[in-house]
Amino acid sequence: MGIQVVRFENNNTEQWGVLEGKRIKVLKENYSTLEDFLQNGQEEARKLLEDSSAETVSFDEVNVLSPVTKPARIVCQGANYSSHRAESGMEANRPPFNLIFSKADSTLTGAYSEIIRPSNVELLDYEIELGLVLGTNISEAVEVTDDNLHEYIAGIVLTNDVSARDVQLVEGQWLKGKSYRTFCPTGPIFYLLDKEEVSLIHDLELNLWVNDELRQSANTDQLLYKPAETLTELSQIMDFSKGDLVLSGTTGGVAMNLTPDLLKQVTDITQPAESKHQALVENQLRSGNKYLKDGDVVRASIKSKDGKIDLGEQRNVVASHTLVTAD
Amino acid sequence: MGIQVVRFENNNTEQWGVLEGKRIKVLKENYSTLEDFLQNGQEEARKLLEDSSAETVSFDEVNVLSPVTKPARIVCQGANYSSHRAESGMEANRPPFNLIFSKADSTLTGAYSEIIRPSNVELLDYEIELGLVLGTNISEAVEVTDDNLHEYIAGIVLTNDVSARDVQLVEGQWLKGKSYRTFCPTGPIFYLLDKEEVSLIHDLELNLWVNDELRQSANTDQLLYKPAETLTELSQIMDFSKGDLVLSGTTGGVAMNLTPDLLKQVTDITQPAESKHQALVENQLRSGNKYLKDGDVVRASIKSKDGKIDLGEQRNVVASHTLVTAD
Repeated sequence: MGIQVVRFENNNTEQWGVLEGKRIKVLKENYSTLEDFLQNGQEEARKLLEDSSAETVSFDEVNVLSPVTKPARIVCQGANYSSHRAESGMEANRPPFNLIFSKADSTLTGAYSEIIRPSNVELLDYEIELGLVLGTNISEAVEVTDDNLHEYIAGIVLTNDVSARDVQLVEGQWLKGKSYRTFCPTGPIFYLLDKEEVSLIHDLELNLWVNDELRQSANTDQLLYKPAETLTELSQIMDFSKGDLVLSGTTGGVAMNLTPDLLKQVTDITQPAESKHQALVENQLRSGNKYLKDGDVVRASIKSKDGKIDLGEQRNVVASHTLVTAD
Repeated sequence: MGIQVVRFENNNTEQWGVLEGKRIKVLKENYSTLEDFLQNGQEEARKLLEDSSAETVSFDEVNVLSPVTKPARIVCQGANYSSHRAESGMEANRPPFNLIFSKADSTLTGAYSEIIRPSNVELLDYEIELGLVLGTNISEAVEVTDDNLHEYIAGIVLTNDVSARDVQLVEGQWLKGKSYRTFCPTGPIFYLLDKEEVSLIHDLELNLWVNDELRQSANTDQLLYKPAETLTELSQIMDFSKGDLVLSGTTGGVAMNLTPDLLKQVTDITQPAESKHQALVENQLRSGNKYLKDGDVVRASIKSKDGKIDLGEQRNVVASHTLVTAD
């Protein structure tokens, strides 16, 4: 069995623990980063499960932090579910290439922290995604298969790839619109996979609600580019470190809803940005639009049908006040 | 006066030094990262200049490394010179937004190392750019002006933002096509700026040659979005750490040469990738094309007209053999 690892703040100290029901068994050692935990803390975490005398705290009484820590590379797959491709105005079938972009690591925030809407952003959107946490350094091309996937993925997390559609689509390169601070709620649980369980990541149920309305609902068996082939390709390009994060893409049901014509119009690199921005915002903010507003509550969960794997539930409130620091 | 810092490998040890003519005065302390050097090594480096008994090695006899070290964020400005905008098929004037993307940090390589062409890449291009090295951590929105720029930029480096145009343009998101290992020769010199010298970064001459033919020649006074306003905007979005790298964009003269029609055609997100790829490659590989071939020698330099600031000269040979590890 894998274990449910959490990182949290209690009495002004950042700690790691293992979740059992609603109690956290607290690790004695302090690991400054997820890489440090993966390198040195796994054994302590597994032993803790059998230690009935371990110190515990209530999950509900601590400040839960993102289990993925900075610095980290956050590399993302785009348009990797057919239902999301269709609502984005794209051909729904698997495309001939794996669309890759990145998010800044200062987007990382906790599962119960606020999502801060920047004042310039009118089209704030959500994207539930399965996050893959690298379990090894990669510095050369490797052949990742379903049989050796456990050597490359240490565990999985629930992530929300929050997106400013007006910035993302009009400017063309997605980094900026995907990278505002707090744009990646991550956790609450880092599920440390057992070798035997890795195949279960292909059959996880994703659900996301806004104000209790179910918006996104899918299964990871619908991923167009699978984790193994994606890591194989990424390894042919760039290096990764233990603890880095790969987001596998989101499914249908986001607020954005584009016809092929509108997509073509707003992404036309030869047209003026101002008119594209106006066309996009006017079209998308018609009555009944699903974009996030201040005060909206975004909930999300990822788990297996049988409940054996459970990445916990996020609950993030949208706010627009100025953020001074982010973690 | 600022100082010319170099990082190099000598007798299997990575070291830092200060360049004087063709000799390197070697720092006694070892700094594992550029951040560590900026935090703890600047004083030693400045003192070394007056130390006539310091150990020296010949610049020509050591393996010069990228002074920017991993992990580092590499955030890039795109289409930030009018001459490069025009040759890319874009409106030449300053656009209404600052185009931002990123490169993987495993692109970093030395000023005399090979640029490795991946076997799938047919349109390999060069881009000389002034690189700004962050001198402080940024974790909130700050107002950067020409008056306080020295608080944010520790120094400058010569960089080549090597680009696989076929991957970059056809796939739409630039991360992959900009991020193959060795796609960012950096150095040889990290020029540590004196506070009084920071304004000189607005008047530096950039030159790049391929096989001794001058291809790119410009002055940083032509930058459309200047360093101060760029850092102000980036600080409103994401965090930076001391030692991170911001590339300020390239000037005209790259191998890529697109009409507005061709640009529109190959970046049309609603069209099939295969036909866009074919149209782009066929158009760009006409006889006389300037794309990089195996064995080509790319030389580049950045310096002030009076020679007071000199970032040294790169000389990178293009090769296509398999790269096992990169640094």
